[in-house]
Amino acid sequence: MEEKLIKVGIVGGTGYTGVELLRLLALHPNVELRAITSRADAGTPVSKMFPSLRGYLDISFSHPESAKLEQCDVVFFATPNGIAMQQARALIDAGVRVVDLAADFRIKDVSVWEKWYGMSHACPELIEQAVYGLPEVNREKIKHAKLVANPGCYPTAVQLGFIPLLEAGLVDSGSLIADAKSGVSGGGRKAEVGFLLAEAADNFKAYGVSGHRHLPEIRQGLAQIAKQAVGLTFVPHLTPMIRGIHATLYAGLKTDADLQGLFEQRYANEPFVDVMPAGSLPDTRSVRGSNCCRIAVYRPQDGNTVVVLSVIDNLVKGAAGQAVHNMNIMFGLPETTALNLVPLLP
Amino acid sequence: MEEKLIKVGIVGGTGYTGVELLRLLALHPNVELRAITSRADAGTPVSKMFPSLRGYLDISFSHPESAKLEQCDVVFFATPNGIAMQQARALIDAGVRVVDLAADFRIKDVSVWEKWYGMSHACPELIEQAVYGLPEVNREKIKHAKLVANPGCYPTAVQLGFIPLLEAGLVDSGSLIADAKSGVSGGGRKAEVGFLLAEAADNFKAYGVSGHRHLPEIRQGLAQIAKQAVGLTFVPHLTPMIRGIHATLYAGLKTDADLQGLFEQRYANEPFVDVMPAGSLPDTRSVRGSNCCRIAVYRPQDGNTVVVLSVIDNLVKGAAGQAVHNMNIMFGLPETTALNLVPLLP
Amino acid sequence: MEEKLIKVGIVGGTGYTGVELLRLLALHPNVELRAITSRADAGTPVSKMFPSLRGYLDISFSHPESAKLEQCDVVFFATPNGIAMQQARALIDAGVRVVDLAADFRIKDVSVWEKWYGMSHACPELIEQAVYGLPEVNREKIKHAKLVANPGCYPTAVQLGFIPLLEAGLVDSGSLIADAKSGVSGGGRKAEVGFLLAEAADNFKAYGVSGHRHLPEIRQGLAQIAKQAVGLTFVPHLTPMIRGIHATLYAGLKTDADLQGLFEQRYANEPFVDVMPAGSLPDTRSVRGSNCCRIAVYRPQDGNTVVVLSVIDNLVKGAAGQAVHNMNIMFGLPETTALNLVPLLP
Amino acid sequence: MEEKLIKVGIVGGTGYTGVELLRLLALHPNVELRAITSRADAGTPVSKMFPSLRGYLDISFSHPESAKLEQCDVVFFATPNGIAMQQARALIDAGVRVVDLAADFRIKDVSVWEKWYGMSHACPELIEQAVYGLPEVNREKIKHAKLVANPGCYPTAVQLGFIPLLEAGLVDSGSLIADAKSGVSGGGRKAEVGFLLAEAADNFKAYGVSGHRHLPEIRQGLAQIAKQAVGLTFVPHLTPMIRGIHATLYAGLKTDADLQGLFEQRYANEPFVDVMPAGSLPDTRSVRGSNCCRIAVYRPQDGNTVVVLSVIDNLVKGAAGQAVHNMNIMFGLPETTALNLVPLLP
Repeated sequence: MEEKLIKVGIVGGTGYTGVELLRLLALHPNVELRAITSRADAGTPVSKMFPSLRGYLDISFSHPESAKLEQCDVVFFATPNGIAMQQARALIDAGVRVVDLAADFRIKDVSVWEKWYGMSHACPELIEQAVYGLPEVNREKIKHAKLVANPGCYPTAVQLGFIPLLEAGLVDSGSLIADAKSGVSGGGRKAEVGFLLAEAADNFKAYGVSGHRHLPEIRQGLAQIAKQAVGLTFVPHLTPMIRGIHATLYAGLKTDADLQGLFEQRYANEPFVDVMPAGSLPDTRSVRGSNCCRIAVYRPQDGNTVVVLSVIDNLVKGAAGQAVHNMNIMFGLPETTALNLVPLLP
Repeated sequence: MEEKLIKVGIVGGTGYTGVELLRLLALHPNVELRAITSRADAGTPVSKMFPSLRGYLDISFSHPESAKLEQCDVVFFATPNGIAMQQARALIDAGVRVVDLAADFRIKDVSVWEKWYGMSHACPELIEQAVYGLPEVNREKIKHAKLVANPGCYPTAVQLGFIPLLEAGLVDSGSLIADAKSGVSGGGRKAEVGFLLAEAADNFKAYGVSGHRHLPEIRQGLAQIAKQAVGLTFVPHLTPMIRGIHATLYAGLKTDADLQGLFEQRYANEPFVDVMPAGSLPDTRSVRGSNCCRIAVYRPQDGNTVVVLSVIDNLVKGAAGQAVHNMNIMFGLPETTALNLVPLLP
Repeated sequence: MEEKLIKVGIVGGTGYTGVELLRLLALHPNVELRAITSRADAGTPVSKMFPSLRGYLDISFSHPESAKLEQCDVVFFATPNGIAMQQARALIDAGVRVVDLAADFRIKDVSVWEKWYGMSHACPELIEQAVYGLPEVNREKIKHAKLVANPGCYPTAVQLGFIPLLEAGLVDSGSLIADAKSGVSGGGRKAEVGFLLAEAADNFKAYGVSGHRHLPEIRQGLAQIAKQAVGLTFVPHLTPMIRGIHATLYAGLKTDADLQGLFEQRYANEPFVDVMPAGSLPDTRSVRGSNCCRIAVYRPQDGNTVVVLSVIDNLVKGAAGQAVHNMNIMFGLPETTALNLVPLLP
Repeated sequence: MEEKLIKVGIVGGTGYTGVELLRLLALHPNVELRAITSRADAGTPVSKMFPSLRGYLDISFSHPESAKLEQCDVVFFATPNGIAMQQARALIDAGVRVVDLAADFRIKDVSVWEKWYGMSHACPELIEQAVYGLPEVNREKIKHAKLVANPGCYPTAVQLGFIPLLEAGLVDSGSLIADAKSGVSGGGRKAEVGFLLAEAADNFKAYGVSGHRHLPEIRQGLAQIAKQAVGLTFVPHLTPMIRGIHATLYAGLKTDADLQGLFEQRYANEPFVDVMPAGSLPDTRSVRGSNCCRIAVYRPQDGNTVVVLSVIDNLVKGAAGQAVHNMNIMFGLPETTALNLVPLLP
């Protein structure tokens, strides 16, 4: 049984989403990793920067110019925002499919994007054909996509928690609240004082209360589901752990309903969404290292407020794992290929 | 200048609120610690159980029966719920003033208390005369109180954040939301699997979503302020740090207002509430080890939702520090005596 | 290509080595998990206690009496010390092969064992035929073993670091020092105050300085290598992390040698020992979740002291992973089956 | 009772030793903080950078040029290495006493210093008159010192543990081993990837095995005590906590002795060294936030190896607290002034 391997390239593999992609792809049976680029670290063996990969990957970072990405079948961008939009056009024209793990193609309204990301978009004409890579919503479109905009980490956790409620029209979409907590790896592998262990450990804080870049992305996704603009207050927090997002969602119930049944039915066929039994308390470690999103739904004191708890590993379901999931869909592979990852607990 | 020292007794000093009381009282210039009881550890030097106190406290745990607490001026109960209600009557009759750090006298409606705490109240007739020890609300009553019910940790952080809004009648009191995050010391010094480092570290989870004992306490306090029943959804979470509570509060604004000015004015004369400048992000470590509550108030995107961030050290302002503050008020001392604690950062 | 699955039973699967065995065996292609016993939790689905396993294991804990372990091909004991020695006889007589992850069969001298473990040995006659399951030393014996004594976590890290030096006779075996640091999961999933996050986080301490149970085990193993009794000072420490052991080993050099070459050659064919390049600093996270032991060797300032750094994941190479490795060897499978685990970093 | 306040200046107060100095001096009754300089942050209120100081310090960072440090009684340098040596001359000539918390004046042999610190010494003539500020050794000299070289954090913990043994000539000074573990605040408030929470949490590693700058400092101090050169292997490690150093020291015993009595006697009159009872296990949190060094001494299995456990808070006894201690000695104040700090536990 011979199968042609998918030729994969990665642009910018020195950050946390990059090394996570490498962890997943290293054992992917249908993938041949052709190149991983890093301008600053060209020539350095990947396993020197990330000793965790010693014995699993025998490849060095290569210079972008010599990486021959146009010969790949698919290229992942694990880069800061603003890079993919400069290179996607040429790759797509060369027949390469592109998955951008950054934000360049997530927002359909280019003026909104430019406002929140503070730069001009280099390639606005590609935005429309980009498919927002949330498989639970856009599976069919992803199959044929040339360009996938992989969702942000908060948007993944928040949207998956709200979707059943909004699809069913059960809640007041004008005053949604998403109180989200993230581990520090969400901040990336960047040398910033605020993310030092001595600053961020044994500490808890909110940030971006006035406005966070994931707000317009979430609003756009929820509006599409609700078929109308939504009102959303989104407050992200930094919690002293490495991986994980816990989104606590609040919505005003408009009518009585079997919430548990609603969620279970909505995600019955989704390989990576686990609606837990009533009364469960999903903890982030129960998805650590895996591509799973676990959800519980509550109606405290039988009041009018629905509370949804939604947890993911921000680097897997919130980034690299979802990207591999999208690739599997794009290339007709079983969706769980290389994503059959038992969470690491404790 | 000779002053008579206040004779202090502590019942149950082997937990975290107990050792924190000891830390604060060890340097209190007006206090003579007469006895600290522990049935299980009678005879053990306090500094053997808590080496941090070596050199500061030369006292051993004593058996409750031999502690002569009735000779004290004030007795603190740092016990599990249900203990103070059995002993307070006799102490008060002996002229001793009592500060209960547990929940026995916090709830005015005894049936509500019995429902949430799962036991019969041993001393319901004392409930009425008990003063709820939140100095920012009840300072005058505390001065003359025989019995102070020291507030819970979550209730302190949540009430201080909502009070200015409710006093001013600015928000819809029917759908308040308090999303609160606590370090694990809030769970006490009890051997429970869920609080092991291997379980609780690198993890985040909600708990008590269906109902938490602090819910009725917060509701009662807010209703008193709002002069009507309030609707409150309260979701506590466990975050992997030792000390600290971060309450993120959401309320629907009914009318435009200068929120920053409102908060600053309300707490202008409070020694332990710090309203931070607009745009601040209070982190829990900024109050670590101190009796301070720091607050910031936001109105994201100029919408109708007010967001208040309120942080305390759960063991100080949320327990032992507030208890000492109450004692200072009860005995006519300067309120900040022994509470002039610079937070430990980093 | 049809293969008969290995029928596996696990005794005592509610601790950390138990859930780790389940994580590894859940994806083992040659294994059929027949039973996992827990007297206290019989009837409870494994995935209810460990939500991380939801979707991976559809089995409940069974009562020891009804588990029919004698029909298994191999039984793992992930129990406290003193259990396996009571049940191994019957299983072996029934033709079942046994791997004990506890300490019952690790020490050959029964009087030494009884002194350190504080109980009479229930089955001393099995001790001799038990094979100490350190594959890097006893691979051939393991193949045919009926009973494997899986090494302790500290002994694995310490022995692998000292072996090349002692085999070559390069160091003074009379004054070896092993300064070892372990994450808290080494203490097991037991409710003990000292392992609470509020006690063990942001803290570092030594323990067992006067004597630790792993001392005689390490001494026995090193003496076998050195072909004489060894002098060893072993000081274990508790470090505030979940998984991982870092052993820092010191030995007096008797003669000059190519230490790097020595180590590389010794472990050249070992699938789970990685001798890192000279100058490397192995960190525990580089083996998190994997069965790998990474080692670096130093001779600081070209002096007479050799320093070896040896890191493992205490729950994998120090427990469950090594047990599965042993099983693979016992049943003639490729040694890395189900152990091809990329470490989780960050 | 009127006392003249000591006019204090701080150069470089934006790092962890700087903010710790501020925490201690904010409550020092004999100190008037005149200036704290920071070239980059001149004009910024100190409490804006460190909200923990809100309400305690009403001073802004000032530009070095306008700070008028020459009008101070004492100036602390909480700067990177290489700064104090450029400015100390002028201050001392102006009659200002100087305490350098960096390493510029710690090493007497300027060539050794220049080798380890990689720069030319700007002021070698001051090295000789600089007093090494370890009060337990140099108290008398400190009283009259113009220039105090405040010891490094590791050197403080390691020297205090070895001193009684070397003074008594009990151990082989040719093969001492110091296995030391530090929290990450020892690395300073610098944006470096290796100190990010996502890198350093849930991880343990050695560093500087080939050679660390504190090695010559420790060697110099121990040689002075031993009255001969010493052989020392020093291996520092990074442990995932914020504050604290745990030094585990090993030495070969030459003759039998009452080790416990020896240590107790040596430090009987030292206010900041606590020799714990035999069998104690000092943990770093037992000194968190305090100026105390706690020590325990062992002779495992009555063998020839002495094991000393020595813990300090690296930012207090290992830096700012020791600096204030030195200042108290220099100005004839009671040594514990402003250092009567109960450790924060939990």
